[in-house]
Amino acid sequence: MKELCIKNGTILTMDEAGTVIHDGMLWIEGSRITYCGPAGSETKPRSHWRRDLDARGGLIMPGLINGHTHAPMTLMRGLADDLPLDVWLSQHIFPAEKNLTSEAVYWGAMLACLEMIRSGTTSFCDMYLFAGQVAQAAHDAGLRAVVGEVLYDFDSPSYGKIENGLALTRELIDKLAPHPRLSAAVMPHALYTCSRSLMESAGAISAETGAALDTHLAENTGETVEVQKSWGARPLAVLEELGLVNERLWINHGVDLNQAEIERLAAAGARVTHCPESNMKLANGVAPLPEMLAAGVKVCLGTDGCASNNDQDLFGEMGSCAKLAKASRLDPTVAPAEAVVSLCTRRGAAAFGRPDDLGVLKPGALADVIVVDTNQPHLTPMYNPMSHLVYAARGGDVLHTVCHGKVLMAEGKVEALDQEEVMAKAKEQARALTGREVL
Amino acid sequence: MKELCIKNGTILTMDEAGTVIHDGMLWIEGSRITYCGPAGSETKPRSHWRRDLDARGGLIMPGLINGHTHAPMTLMRGLADDLPLDVWLSQHIFPAEKNLTSEAVYWGAMLACLEMIRSGTTSFCDMYLFAGQVAQAAHDAGLRAVVGEVLYDFDSPSYGKIENGLALTRELIDKLAPHPRLSAAVMPHALYTCSRSLMESAGAISAETGAALDTHLAENTGETVEVQKSWGARPLAVLEELGLVNERLWINHGVDLNQAEIERLAAAGARVTHCPESNMKLANGVAPLPEMLAAGVKVCLGTDGCASNNDQDLFGEMGSCAKLAKASRLDPTVAPAEAVVSLCTRRGAAAFGRPDDLGVLKPGALADVIVVDTNQPHLTPMYNPMSHLVYAARGGDVLHTVCHGKVLMAEGKVEALDQEEVMAKAKEQARALTGREVL
Repeated sequence: MKELCIKNGTILTMDEAGTVIHDGMLWIEGSRITYCGPAGSETKPRSHWRRDLDARGGLIMPGLINGHTHAPMTLMRGLADDLPLDVWLSQHIFPAEKNLTSEAVYWGAMLACLEMIRSGTTSFCDMYLFAGQVAQAAHDAGLRAVVGEVLYDFDSPSYGKIENGLALTRELIDKLAPHPRLSAAVMPHALYTCSRSLMESAGAISAETGAALDTHLAENTGETVEVQKSWGARPLAVLEELGLVNERLWINHGVDLNQAEIERLAAAGARVTHCPESNMKLANGVAPLPEMLAAGVKVCLGTDGCASNNDQDLFGEMGSCAKLAKASRLDPTVAPAEAVVSLCTRRGAAAFGRPDDLGVLKPGALADVIVVDTNQPHLTPMYNPMSHLVYAARGGDVLHTVCHGKVLMAEGKVEALDQEEVMAKAKEQARALTGREVL
Repeated sequence: MKELCIKNGTILTMDEAGTVIHDGMLWIEGSRITYCGPAGSETKPRSHWRRDLDARGGLIMPGLINGHTHAPMTLMRGLADDLPLDVWLSQHIFPAEKNLTSEAVYWGAMLACLEMIRSGTTSFCDMYLFAGQVAQAAHDAGLRAVVGEVLYDFDSPSYGKIENGLALTRELIDKLAPHPRLSAAVMPHALYTCSRSLMESAGAISAETGAALDTHLAENTGETVEVQKSWGARPLAVLEELGLVNERLWINHGVDLNQAEIERLAAAGARVTHCPESNMKLANGVAPLPEMLAAGVKVCLGTDGCASNNDQDLFGEMGSCAKLAKASRLDPTVAPAEAVVSLCTRRGAAAFGRPDDLGVLKPGALADVIVVDTNQPHLTPMYNPMSHLVYAARGGDVLHTVCHGKVLMAEGKVEALDQEEVMAKAKEQARALTGREVL
């Protein structure tokens, strides 16, 4: 049994009460936290611990949760920016994706995992092609993930015909069920790329297996117009008519939602992943975050893929989330720091379907823990840790990353994988995928 | 004479033509660049150079230019967030500023300088109390700066009565005139804190000395309403009536500007500093960046002070600038990456009044140079350097910082000042200023 001690830091438990423990200490045995409290009350002798991690006076907090990404798209980071959406998709992203191979997906996902470990993300939810390879990467990197094969009605470079995609989804759900850190969900891409029959089949798999159904929805007003034209109703109403709006529904973006829709999502217990930086960069609009939080919708935060962000850094995402909300409402009090941090921790976990043992530091919770090194010029002085996490900290400030009790990074050095190898392989795959020279 | 060679990187000259030099080399003699070109054509033997900086395959580019900040406000970083503007100012910022001492200003400014050096900023424009201490800090830290004593009609903790403030401004302009990196400007705070007589006196000093007149203007629509009430015209019209809208005028924010005003600013050759993160966080609105650029206004980028940002990182600011413009216009093509980088380099220099020898790498230009370490997971792969600078890089990615030919940071280690001392002194001053415990 692994036994780990994290000491000499301020613990932000991220529990509902906002408990903060100064000079705190955390014990981890196996995959769980066994003690979370002041250092003075330790009972085990120091020599008992196999390994100590020194927080160096920094912040000890839950590993961050990324509710929506396309991890392998790290390979397309900065491939094309500042373009109209149709040009970006049809002339850059889709042509590259046509060349996708399972190897490219694996190394792209590994690069994303490396970036997540370095920037304090320990759980992510991923929709992409060759999802089995994304699962393999998350397994190899030691991260927690929900993965899903993206389903649509045109031939996939991964599974070919949609029948195979549905079968693959079912297999993936079964195969990952016993895994301690991984699981699979049903992931139809969007209403504008999926037929009624596909959505019905996806819904049936979700209902039979209990797996989540994760889809892009209401990303912008253009989508609403298109869906109204082809399906005869607004996006959420289409899902309702299909019987898909329930606790298993995870929607990504949720930009163009009206108040009545927000209330129906809250009542159904569905989850919305807010992706502010992607929404900004692609000029999709601003999701109604304050209204969703007020209505009690399960909201979490997502980076989206690197083709539209262009990083996997949830610290930057938290900053953009808070600032975009204030700017769009002309109200500096909306999206306050603690609420934003909760989207990536306590609330993120609830939205992930693990409200009891993820996203919060307490005895019995999963040992997904990060340490933020606050002894740095841009985090000096520190009056309020929550403010720093949202408005001043960056992924690069993460010192230690632990997931499921295992040390993935210590003292800024990644132990879970070979950083140089991952970067070299990812570059090689990026060249092959795009035919472009990369530096 | 100092002689320095920066090698083994891709040079982004940031000139009008967008010249990029792969495997480039830069020679610096004294405070100037003497060679900027491919490595192969070097003529001096390697042993000739006193010092080599290895760019490790990264990006060699001009040091960034911060057009508007209040450096000493690092001491109030995260002191109060997410509050209505009046509560934030009257209950938190103003009470702290009443306790300001010249020592607090010096160490707060030193902390800002440290943060700037670490994040690749080599020039900044600063408005604050005890501006002589800000100049001293910039001098000691080796940075380039334009400083100014903030002027308003109530008693200042620094100079007391406004007459003394005006005298101090004149002294500072004279005193810094011979300094190779520092100069002073006339800095009346804003039309809602300054009387007609103050604005007239400030304008007279600017006209007599040729120093810039730098002021907050059109930060939000509320200001416009207030100025219309007390001055009888919109903010820019008031400045026009006072005869202050000319090449020496530097306005900060410029959020509430209409098209006619934008055209008048362009025609006058006045400069506008756009502060997107501060505008977002304080919910002041969105400045008309695309229109200003189209009209040919001299625009640069500013972080504003740490009480409203909460960092001095121009990389994060560039990302927010590009994304906010797209989000607010629902157009992903506005504020493309190269244009945004130019705001902190080529255009920033023009706006700083040094269009010929700052913000661009070329023989004869000032040797303000930074190196961005791109050999990192979150900057892999790299198709387009401009994209990475705006959408994925962070201040923490800066490896070397050189200003005026002097190495301020090499291999991520600050040489210009004692980092531990600056952080300790700043914490001590922050405690004294606010009466709050700081971590």
